[in-house]
Amino acid sequence: MSDQAQKPFSFKLLKTDGAARRGEITTPHGVVRTPAFMPVGTQATVKAMYPQQVRDLGADVILGNTYHLMLRPTAERVAKLGGLHHFMNWPHAILTDSGGFQVMSLAQLRKMSEEGVSFRSHHDGSKHMMSPERSIEIQGLLGSDIQMQLDQCIALPAERSEIEEAMNLSLRWADRSRTQFEKMGGPGKGQALYGIVQGGDNPELRVESAQRLGEMPFEGYSVGGLAVGEPQEVMLRMLEVTTPVMPVHKPRYLMGVGTPEDILESVARGIDQFDCVMPTRAGRHGLAYTRFGKVNLKNARHAEDPRPLDEEADCPATRDYSRAYLHHLVRVNEGLAAMLLTWNNLAYYQFLMQGIRDAIEAGTFEDFRQKTKEDWARGDLAPYVWS
Amino acid sequence: MSDQAQKPFSFKLLKTDGAARRGEITTPHGVVRTPAFMPVGTQATVKAMYPQQVRDLGADVILGNTYHLMLRPTAERVAKLGGLHHFMNWPHAILTDSGGFQVMSLAQLRKMSEEGVSFRSHHDGSKHMMSPERSIEIQGLLGSDIQMQLDQCIALPAERSEIEEAMNLSLRWADRSRTQFEKMGGPGKGQALYGIVQGGDNPELRVESAQRLGEMPFEGYSVGGLAVGEPQEVMLRMLEVTTPVMPVHKPRYLMGVGTPEDILESVARGIDQFDCVMPTRAGRHGLAYTRFGKVNLKNARHAEDPRPLDEEADCPATRDYSRAYLHHLVRVNEGLAAMLLTWNNLAYYQFLMQGIRDAIEAGTFEDFRQKTKEDWARGDLAPYVWS
Repeated sequence: MSDQAQKPFSFKLLKTDGAARRGEITTPHGVVRTPAFMPVGTQATVKAMYPQQVRDLGADVILGNTYHLMLRPTAERVAKLGGLHHFMNWPHAILTDSGGFQVMSLAQLRKMSEEGVSFRSHHDGSKHMMSPERSIEIQGLLGSDIQMQLDQCIALPAERSEIEEAMNLSLRWADRSRTQFEKMGGPGKGQALYGIVQGGDNPELRVESAQRLGEMPFEGYSVGGLAVGEPQEVMLRMLEVTTPVMPVHKPRYLMGVGTPEDILESVARGIDQFDCVMPTRAGRHGLAYTRFGKVNLKNARHAEDPRPLDEEADCPATRDYSRAYLHHLVRVNEGLAAMLLTWNNLAYYQFLMQGIRDAIEAGTFEDFRQKTKEDWARGDLAPYVWS
Repeated sequence: MSDQAQKPFSFKLLKTDGAARRGEITTPHGVVRTPAFMPVGTQATVKAMYPQQVRDLGADVILGNTYHLMLRPTAERVAKLGGLHHFMNWPHAILTDSGGFQVMSLAQLRKMSEEGVSFRSHHDGSKHMMSPERSIEIQGLLGSDIQMQLDQCIALPAERSEIEEAMNLSLRWADRSRTQFEKMGGPGKGQALYGIVQGGDNPELRVESAQRLGEMPFEGYSVGGLAVGEPQEVMLRMLEVTTPVMPVHKPRYLMGVGTPEDILESVARGIDQFDCVMPTRAGRHGLAYTRFGKVNLKNARHAEDPRPLDEEADCPATRDYSRAYLHHLVRVNEGLAAMLLTWNNLAYYQFLMQGIRDAIEAGTFEDFRQKTKEDWARGDLAPYVWS
């Protein structure tokens, strides 16, 4: 196993087109082409997908959830079994979150303090403490290539004073996370730690957070606390003020985003990395992403439609199964529905990312963006008519 | 589409070894190597498997359930969409049951008569009639290569008079099924209709049923009404008296059977085709079939076992994932658990069938049978010990 490979982490900015960036992240588990979409593998599996399928679609990196993994099967067990890459049979790059966001949304009896968050597991009520140090310790045990600092992400709308307090706490935690990361030998293993920009929907605080974080030695920088319920325009405005003050030669990761349009518009504002449960979750709920928007396979209009989701696509799930068949599988609640629709959705997301990367390389990102949005606006095929 | 291909149905007996038979069934959708195990694809999908995976494991034929398909999406809709092969993206052979067994086990308000069975759907209470003619009509609409007569299968133990009555009714229904099959043009489409031997656990009635059925012009013959709760030795004794009086040059299908041992012992008694939900159902319940017996992945002994189910196997599910990982997936109820374990289980069943076919060809079936049973008796690996 090369889990302990010494290849250093690095980011190369290959090309820009407006604010959009084409880059390459080198990790101990391979190169990540950016802009990159990272499928979410919460419990050491990208739901309803074999790892090789995820890879074959063009994913260079997936995301693992620290909160879930620390509870089951536990980071210590994953470490004993050779680390997360080996455990889940994914020899490519892995990014882990800090666990903080899910502690706040899933765990019980949470208590915040300067030290961290104490909580009880939503599975068995067992007691745990999540501090910046413990988060990094867990991520180190998992062996992820890209690790996240623990931060405090608050719901919007919120008072400025509350946003500022959370931002300042996040900055202090950034510092403690970095110290722990170095203590764990992360840099020597070629791993990366990303700091997280906070500041809610306040442009001044966003700039302050980005600047102060930028003075700290991180391998990359995340934008957190967005896509938490605010309108898309607020998110995009925050990116417009934030990315210009972020370090140019470090990767930028917009956490938990988003719809295909969110991604396209965020790339246009200088973001390099994305993750989101949408394509996988939608795939388990009968929803398909396509070049022409979102298709709800539960809808009776598909019941006798012999056409595939998109006959021009490369993905077998998209090309080789009729809408009528997918409708049937969804209606009778067969596992193959989730398998095919998740496959289709991740294929579409990776198809979008490849299109974005190609366009930036070619200097035609603006055309690509317009064309892609026109296709979405065109909408799905008209209902099938039997002659 | 070649759904209406005119290649005639035929069976070639290639080799015998004791009572075990190696043969080849030619259908409009390819050749079926026998002895054959047919994975069950109840609702137009072999649960948790892509069709191509099923094929790649060596399955030449799968089974579809008439009862489920007539209710959802309906046989008429499947026919409109080009038949079951096209609908489910399985261009190889398909066998359908008559629907009778599942009407009796799943449907509501059943009423038996000479004419057939009236019942209500267990989904929506809608009223239906299943007669020999309707069953064949549905199977013809689905376009299955091998179709089954409607029969009456009774639970054991039962009185001789009751068994005899059901047997006689089944023989009358065999005749009506045949008439309908010819009316539907089944023979001209190269399709097959199998008659079903009944007779419960009564050797005399089994012989009578087989002989009377054998005088009727079917392309193949099933043995029904076994593996319905009786001890294995009763089932095998029934086969021992039945298969010798069944036509030699027609395929013989033992319905709903069974465990790997049931299959091995039934091949030794002259059976050519099998179907069973065990490998697929077990795969959704954390159970793995291997060369060394059944492994329960829920068991805590696997929690830190870094070894795969069987490192010598060809199937990626069997070879490339640790027991610890499979245990984790089962425990956290991830869909990938069912995907990997079903894959493993069908791989093992097809591995067994390939071993059986090779052994009969080589004239070493008896050795193979002993060796295989020794492996099963040996049991699973001893628990893993970390040094």
